[in-house]
Amino acid sequence: MNAHSSPNIVMLCGGVGGAKMAEGFAHSRFADNLSLIGNVADDQDFHGLWVSPDIDTLTYTLTDNIDRNKGWGLVDESNRVLDQLKALGADTWMYLGDRDFATHILRTQLRHQGMRPTEIARRIAESFGLDVPIILPTDDVIQNQVKTENGWVAFQDFFVKWGCQPDVLECRVVGIDQAEATPEALHAIAQADMIVIAPSNPIVSINPILSVPGIREALELSSAFKVAVSPLVAGQTVKGPADKMMLAAGYRADVQGVADFYSGVVDALVIDQQDRAYLSAVEQRIEHVLVTDTLMFNRANKVRLAESIVHAYQSCTARQTPELQQAG
Amino acid sequence: MNAHSSPNIVMLCGGVGGAKMAEGFAHSRFADNLSLIGNVADDQDFHGLWVSPDIDTLTYTLTDNIDRNKGWGLVDESNRVLDQLKALGADTWMYLGDRDFATHILRTQLRHQGMRPTEIARRIAESFGLDVPIILPTDDVIQNQVKTENGWVAFQDFFVKWGCQPDVLECRVVGIDQAEATPEALHAIAQADMIVIAPSNPIVSINPILSVPGIREALELSSAFKVAVSPLVAGQTVKGPADKMMLAAGYRADVQGVADFYSGVVDALVIDQQDRAYLSAVEQRIEHVLVTDTLMFNRANKVRLAESIVHAYQSCTARQTPELQQAG
Repeated sequence: MNAHSSPNIVMLCGGVGGAKMAEGFAHSRFADNLSLIGNVADDQDFHGLWVSPDIDTLTYTLTDNIDRNKGWGLVDESNRVLDQLKALGADTWMYLGDRDFATHILRTQLRHQGMRPTEIARRIAESFGLDVPIILPTDDVIQNQVKTENGWVAFQDFFVKWGCQPDVLECRVVGIDQAEATPEALHAIAQADMIVIAPSNPIVSINPILSVPGIREALELSSAFKVAVSPLVAGQTVKGPADKMMLAAGYRADVQGVADFYSGVVDALVIDQQDRAYLSAVEQRIEHVLVTDTLMFNRANKVRLAESIVHAYQSCTARQTPELQQAG
Repeated sequence: MNAHSSPNIVMLCGGVGGAKMAEGFAHSRFADNLSLIGNVADDQDFHGLWVSPDIDTLTYTLTDNIDRNKGWGLVDESNRVLDQLKALGADTWMYLGDRDFATHILRTQLRHQGMRPTEIARRIAESFGLDVPIILPTDDVIQNQVKTENGWVAFQDFFVKWGCQPDVLECRVVGIDQAEATPEALHAIAQADMIVIAPSNPIVSINPILSVPGIREALELSSAFKVAVSPLVAGQTVKGPADKMMLAAGYRADVQGVADFYSGVVDALVIDQQDRAYLSAVEQRIEHVLVTDTLMFNRANKVRLAESIVHAYQSCTARQTPELQQAG
């Protein structure tokens, strides 16, 4: 890394929380060499169309096309297609807006034409005018599934259809053992100065990325500084079922559980100031801990958090005694 | 056929003109035993979705969901999906409305699931509430192509994208020699008392049905009374490029050309009263000729035409001296 340029930053991220943090980096002083590795394990077929919720959330957020009220989907949506599919007898519990359908139609067409999913994601992102690369961890089909008392269901069924209500007994990523990492993901990790794991759901967003054979090894080999941001604040998840799923996966549903999950993977963990009481417990598991305000309500919050993470990285890698415990 | 029931009527039909005539029969006193064999040679892939224009026009017309101003497409349409596909760089010359997209999405999904196209057409028609069977002549992919000075193009390209402007040098139905007739089509023809060929384009709507191996032979074997309605009136086509295509296929672009085309196929031809001057020329080619008003502007026209055709059939099959030359 050239001292005068931005560090080469690679972020591993899921959907809504990942997109918020990505937006912070993309609008920060450190946006020049940013790339994102997204999650494809929540992908699912709806009406024969390939829907990739987390990748689309990244694309829509970073190009300011996201519905800010919902945090997902496109602005200015309508549901003419979905209403008609329902009238024709289709099961329409998954909300898909008309403009969003265009994305899924295009993606599905390109998949059937044999284009690599990584290339498709790039092409769609470019069509939306995005200049931050979104990289897929794998071109293979992997899928998060959740075991409830009624058996295994796809994550979107649990998350959307059942509103996260059923108890989660177990989680798995179907197809993960046979998946191959994309050369783009391995290259990005190898070239990174800094790898940031967004405050996304560790079980269904980050674990499917880390578990693609070759990705975890690439992270271990990488000399990049690795930092994760806790998605759990005061023992709760900001959005989604991360707490419930951490428990099902055998972790505590708090920053200590997050520290356990990322122990051995990252050099640093960012925890919210509300969790300052856990600092010493977390420090037993992770070398560097940054305590700050991690809640991202607006773009200024997001940029401030991104820049404080880069500053912490610069402090650590300058081999100064890290003074990471700043107030939020 | 029981003397007190409606004759078993099978209609071969294309899109807009075929749907108008089908509507006439469906609302006539002879609707009880009506079934339609539609045209699939204008089917085409758009955005990876399987679009079947003629079959949809039949379904939408017969269930009163058709846009009456255009004669095709659904009422109450919008174009949110198409606009977004265009924004993403897709080629969107083929108009597809949002509600219509639902049909194509469902059809494509069912095709990928392996359902027979005939079964899919039935399922979609039933979802729209249609009780008249729409039968496909074949489950195989066949496609009308038109040769222009720029080479062979699919019919929809010629018809919609190029607005029928280029000169037509030649027409062909790709895949027709390998196509297999559906058992439903063969059964319907075998059971028919009367086979009506709608005033559809002979070259791109009727010829692809007749040319599916087995269909023409089934018609020849059938004891049904066969009657075609001329799509050309006063040397012009009511809608579409039938005149141009008749010429390209080596026929005159008038009722004499239509009579040549259907000579040996039908027992009777219905020609418009405006073509009364051609009566004797047509009678040299076709055994029975009904001269009447064939233009269908409203439902009353359509029903009247349908019933006059059945009456002509009843006259002929009662072996009375046919008095078919009624005024319109």
